[in-house]
Amino acid sequence: MRFSPLVDRISGKGSDAWSIHWRARELARQGRDVIMLTVGDPDMPPPARVIEAAVESLRAGRTTYSPMAGYPEVRAAIAARHAERTGVPTPADDVVVVPGAQAGLYCAMQCLAGPGDEVIAPEPMYATYGAVAGAAGASIVNVALRPERGFHLDPDDLERAVTPRTRVLWLNSPHNPTGAVMTRAEVEAAAEFCRRHDLWLLSDEVYADLAYAGPHVSPRSLPGMAERTVVVSSLSKSHAVPGFRFGWIIGPAELAGHLSRLVLCMLYGGPPFIQDGALAALTADCPEVGEMAEAYRRRAGIMVSLLENVPGLRASRPEGGMFVLLDVRGTGRTSDEFAYGLLEGQGVAVLPCDGFGPSAAGHLRISLAAPDGRIEEAARRIAEHAAPA
Amino acid sequence: MRFSPLVDRISGKGSDAWSIHWRARELARQGRDVIMLTVGDPDMPPPARVIEAAVESLRAGRTTYSPMAGYPEVRAAIAARHAERTGVPTPADDVVVVPGAQAGLYCAMQCLAGPGDEVIAPEPMYATYGAVAGAAGASIVNVALRPERGFHLDPDDLERAVTPRTRVLWLNSPHNPTGAVMTRAEVEAAAEFCRRHDLWLLSDEVYADLAYAGPHVSPRSLPGMAERTVVVSSLSKSHAVPGFRFGWIIGPAELAGHLSRLVLCMLYGGPPFIQDGALAALTADCPEVGEMAEAYRRRAGIMVSLLENVPGLRASRPEGGMFVLLDVRGTGRTSDEFAYGLLEGQGVAVLPCDGFGPSAAGHLRISLAAPDGRIEEAARRIAEHAAPA
Repeated sequence: MRFSPLVDRISGKGSDAWSIHWRARELARQGRDVIMLTVGDPDMPPPARVIEAAVESLRAGRTTYSPMAGYPEVRAAIAARHAERTGVPTPADDVVVVPGAQAGLYCAMQCLAGPGDEVIAPEPMYATYGAVAGAAGASIVNVALRPERGFHLDPDDLERAVTPRTRVLWLNSPHNPTGAVMTRAEVEAAAEFCRRHDLWLLSDEVYADLAYAGPHVSPRSLPGMAERTVVVSSLSKSHAVPGFRFGWIIGPAELAGHLSRLVLCMLYGGPPFIQDGALAALTADCPEVGEMAEAYRRRAGIMVSLLENVPGLRASRPEGGMFVLLDVRGTGRTSDEFAYGLLEGQGVAVLPCDGFGPSAAGHLRISLAAPDGRIEEAARRIAEHAAPA
Repeated sequence: MRFSPLVDRISGKGSDAWSIHWRARELARQGRDVIMLTVGDPDMPPPARVIEAAVESLRAGRTTYSPMAGYPEVRAAIAARHAERTGVPTPADDVVVVPGAQAGLYCAMQCLAGPGDEVIAPEPMYATYGAVAGAAGASIVNVALRPERGFHLDPDDLERAVTPRTRVLWLNSPHNPTGAVMTRAEVEAAAEFCRRHDLWLLSDEVYADLAYAGPHVSPRSLPGMAERTVVVSSLSKSHAVPGFRFGWIIGPAELAGHLSRLVLCMLYGGPPFIQDGALAALTADCPEVGEMAEAYRRRAGIMVSLLENVPGLRASRPEGGMFVLLDVRGTGRTSDEFAYGLLEGQGVAVLPCDGFGPSAAGHLRISLAAPDGRIEEAARRIAEHAAPA
């Protein structure tokens, strides 16, 4: 039987990025001691009050259909939180609830770009980005985030990438997988670029609560940008609830209208009890959020310190997020060779970054979602694996 | 700012079908006594064991990421249930978990049809179908389900609708909004049509547990059909948990692979604790399921009996599902006039069916998701509203 052309557009290299993760899970199931540092699945428990709010809601019969864009009070809480952080007035009507940031990026892209349109995205980029653009029929035009610049964007590269078909600039800060956090000047330059070329700015801010080297600057907070910026974020990282699949999109009210109609035919709303749990997360003071951010920062320090003097390796000290990027080119091995050897030989699972773009070739992404002791042990095993045979 | 062409393709008449629902909710919030019979949101509580399984899972920390296609044991349970009902061997690899049947239809269509392709769908059809096809870039070609045939499909109409661009036949039985349940002979004729023209058969079986006039026959159970049938269903109606957004797609394993990659870039999996709750629903014996089906059947009888002798009205006795279709053409009023007048004058909210297709013009869809006493009271008010002024 024949499938639609879409199936080819979503099956790029990025869709294989997690192969090693499944291999590692299989080894662990067989009883191997595997330190899983492949995915950004928080190891710390979510705030208990968030879980109990969802439990109470489930038991109260909140298992019905719900409004397409999310409950008004949940949209209002997201809007208020964004307004408080950015200083930008944000009506609840500008917010649409979606099942996680991945869905947020997918839904936003469906409404912003179509066949023949180009989306500029710095690479390395998160491994699903290519498929998100492909699903909309659009093409990604990459600009390189170069290791020698600490993976920070060179604004001149944007000018070289723009064409009459460019519709969207897609940014992600704090950045996955590199850990770079855009400075205010860099965000301003990108925003000016979008205004000058009349582009949308799609801003993936899922790690906004984990910017530790400097403050997170949302492009939506800059003058003239609210009308063209689409912010996507979630509670997955900040509150350790990726299994809630709770995220949101903030953009112009007209976009929110289109998104509501997309959610209608694509999802028909989301679980009320998850929104109730999320509302507790959004409105209550959860000390766990700051503690988790501090833990990731501390673990990044541990990992980098233990690897920085290992011959053949270069670990980047992240400015935010929950990953350390490790350059293994000095070992003479490819990232795939290094990572699979590390898994089979030392029982440490990390992600080869080739699926994230050519500028990340020869790099590994190491998740910090494991207790400090396991991070130390992983660093020790990585160093051992790096030694010449 | 300019949006993608998709936003126009998802904004057809169907997306406005629920306008009266939101108006009714507003009246209810203002304190009016409104009998809400607009949507198929079950009024009976879900089985307690299903809710408690989700609660236990939430508290056990099952709030992490999960496999793209669903947990193997959940896929296996869905496969086993389908195999038991249809007699068709069904490997777990043929099943993909999605957040509700709406998402199932959306995801399936994305993989089956694209720009320039045609999808044959009998109308009246569920109000989101047009947008689901539109989101994929495909066009719906309607064939009429005529009131004088009890809204059963005329196979000759299929032959007249097929073109070289036809890719999919999209069926729904038990049918929303008409309540018709396809007979075995009708399903066989449709299956033969699909084999002869090499088409996919997309089968929306969300009301399969509510077929009360005759048995539900899945086209996937017919010879040579497993390779070209895509079944979409959910627990929303059978177990009264629409808020779980838990559904599934069953199709060839190759389709399941494409769907997994689509879920990767569109959703990144689903909530583990919802899958745990669903697993309880799929594997435990829940007497509530049969009781709910019986309640809908009983209420359909009440509604039809009370309306069948009212001048100007013709109520169809449904063969399945949770709706009664009411023909109000004999009153000389349009379905919009009748429905909005009924809401404002009598406080009964039902759905005008024009958004479901031209063959349903002049009809109202009455949901049976209210206690028997409210169904009786609604019928009394509808009869009063039908009387000439």
